[in-house]
Amino acid sequence: MKKSICTALTVLCASSAAVAEEEKTRPDPKPSPDVQQITPQLYSYTTELLFGEVWKRPQLSPRDRSLITLAALISAGQTAQMTGHLKLGLDNGLKPSEISALITHLAFYAGWPNAMSAVTVTRQIFTERGIPDEQLVPPSEPLLTLEPDQEANRKAAVAAAVGGTAPDLARYTDDVLFADLWRQPGLTARDRSLVTMASLITQGQAAQLGFHLNRAMDNGLTRTQASEVVTHLAFYVGWPKAMSAVPVLKEVFAARAVKS
Amino acid sequence: MKKSICTALTVLCASSAAVAEEEKTRPDPKPSPDVQQITPQLYSYTTELLFGEVWKRPQLSPRDRSLITLAALISAGQTAQMTGHLKLGLDNGLKPSEISALITHLAFYAGWPNAMSAVTVTRQIFTERGIPDEQLVPPSEPLLTLEPDQEANRKAAVAAAVGGTAPDLARYTDDVLFADLWRQPGLTARDRSLVTMASLITQGQAAQLGFHLNRAMDNGLTRTQASEVVTHLAFYVGWPKAMSAVPVLKEVFAARAVKS
Amino acid sequence: MKKSICTALTVLCASSAAVAEEEKTRPDPKPSPDVQQITPQLYSYTTELLFGEVWKRPQLSPRDRSLITLAALISAGQTAQMTGHLKLGLDNGLKPSEISALITHLAFYAGWPNAMSAVTVTRQIFTERGIPDEQLVPPSEPLLTLEPDQEANRKAAVAAAVGGTAPDLARYTDDVLFADLWRQPGLTARDRSLVTMASLITQGQAAQLGFHLNRAMDNGLTRTQASEVVTHLAFYVGWPKAMSAVPVLKEVFAARAVKS
Repeated sequence: MKKSICTALTVLCASSAAVAEEEKTRPDPKPSPDVQQITPQLYSYTTELLFGEVWKRPQLSPRDRSLITLAALISAGQTAQMTGHLKLGLDNGLKPSEISALITHLAFYAGWPNAMSAVTVTRQIFTERGIPDEQLVPPSEPLLTLEPDQEANRKAAVAAAVGGTAPDLARYTDDVLFADLWRQPGLTARDRSLVTMASLITQGQAAQLGFHLNRAMDNGLTRTQASEVVTHLAFYVGWPKAMSAVPVLKEVFAARAVKS
Repeated sequence: MKKSICTALTVLCASSAAVAEEEKTRPDPKPSPDVQQITPQLYSYTTELLFGEVWKRPQLSPRDRSLITLAALISAGQTAQMTGHLKLGLDNGLKPSEISALITHLAFYAGWPNAMSAVTVTRQIFTERGIPDEQLVPPSEPLLTLEPDQEANRKAAVAAAVGGTAPDLARYTDDVLFADLWRQPGLTARDRSLVTMASLITQGQAAQLGFHLNRAMDNGLTRTQASEVVTHLAFYVGWPKAMSAVPVLKEVFAARAVKS
Repeated sequence: MKKSICTALTVLCASSAAVAEEEKTRPDPKPSPDVQQITPQLYSYTTELLFGEVWKRPQLSPRDRSLITLAALISAGQTAQMTGHLKLGLDNGLKPSEISALITHLAFYAGWPNAMSAVTVTRQIFTERGIPDEQLVPPSEPLLTLEPDQEANRKAAVAAAVGGTAPDLARYTDDVLFADLWRQPGLTARDRSLVTMASLITQGQAAQLGFHLNRAMDNGLTRTQASEVVTHLAFYVGWPKAMSAVPVLKEVFAARAVKS
């Protein structure tokens, strides 16, 4: 418990420094003038609250905020709003190869059609920014290794819940998702967990959120960061889905507090 | 119980008169000729059932039907279908400032990206109709006052459910959503409740529907009107999500019948 | 039990033959070159796994896979990805009148806006392919007859669950959906069940999936096919929604095994 608070504080301070750096060099993103004209009240909320405060909160780095915002937009098929956030994500330090890996990851977690639609918008932005194709080739590093005990537990759970009813779905889960997708070096394990959590919250799918939150915390996500993921996403997927995620966090935090 | 039936009948008669008036002056909206060509059966359902019957039912005014239909379209990111319904909404008596407040409200309840996409379509229609910007400035009336006991209960519930797990989400809920957004004079409390209910049903988020239905009924929504919201939305969000809302209505109606 | 295995094997063999035939005459669909450039890893998954393996699995015919894929795309409002899949569906043997009936069916199950958006894309493809309007007129056969006992049970269940709370919604369910829509001869009862299941899974609405899975199996869908529907859809609606459908299948399979 104490240790996790210290970690949180360290991360908090590190992120604060990063934010301070950002602020010096880059102005806040501005919503389109249409927003000011048609919905002046929403314009104030956007400039003062969302970009003026939420994005600057130190509990998550701007880079992580961009990662989960893009995961939410892709999972909800929000192509119209992706343009601005792809640019912001690159400005916030997301690598083109990470955005590529993000889309590929979400093909499995939010469905092929959303991934395919995201590719079209992303190509436009990458072309505009002159990003060379070499930056999109997945790193030629070996596949990541999953923690063997954790993976054995996961496999057993899938076999029990899915194996008897949809054996091929269980097989693809084991052989493609976990033995291949999750081990691709294009994103760290922590980032894949963050992206998966954001996608589940966006889809209103609380059932599998507990598993992925535990996995994220095993991979270094702190309580403070997990809460901030939900707080940040409230603005991007709406309050109701964020609120529905809170009981899952509560339960996982309590279970891990007992164990540690 | 008796009283609520009387209220329902009064509203029913008042709305019937309004509908009769409408019918004299304005023809039913027509679906695009593509619908007649590609899906002739759907064309019949649309002209005879949806516009020929459902929209004319006296249990909700055309203006309220437009309000919840637009809330559903915005919450589902259905920009392509918004054009026709924004025009219909203005024809049905929704004020431009109410549409502006609706979009702003849904930024919080259905997420910023859906609100931003709605702004773009709305600007086109408002420009087409020559609506001057003055009509979009929120009224300069003071903030509405929330009923203090109700608000104290709500705050306590959020503190208990969310405060310990995601304290900043709880804080934004209290300080921004309820102390500010819900008090903006651009929409009445009853309208905000209607819009929020429509958004929750569209998102398949039954968990918070009970709270907002109670709030809506505290603000004057009758049982008959609440049922009609779900019946109307069945056509706009699909039968499954409407059916999933019914048990929540059943429970709230029963609890309120016991209390009164 | 034994009988259903035999049926499954027969269907399996019949479908295998159909697939073999297809393969001779038609190359696999290819994703856009953007996918290869921006997300090379996703390109491999698409060509090798999704089109190279999943679509060729004999548990469901390519025609049925196109039917449920289109149902998922329409239900999620994925117009951008519909173009390719409408062409593939026609190539896989879906009749234009079936696609018309599919869209009309989903107006009720996924909402009018999704159906209306699907009409626009479909008209473009039908025009491109020179499909004459005669092929879209619903067959002039008499309405299908619903099995009377099954229908009496359904009506009683709707009366109990919905009748007291939203009587008009119950009435439309009985008089329009079941007494009319489900009896239209444009799609077989089994196809309507498949489409409805696909739509429910896409919307993450597990509550009504059990009813429609039972109905589908009463209309000839085997266990193997039902599992394959979920496995196929995992790729089109994402793993989380597919996984959430599995417990419903498990329960229905168990209940039917006890009964038979």
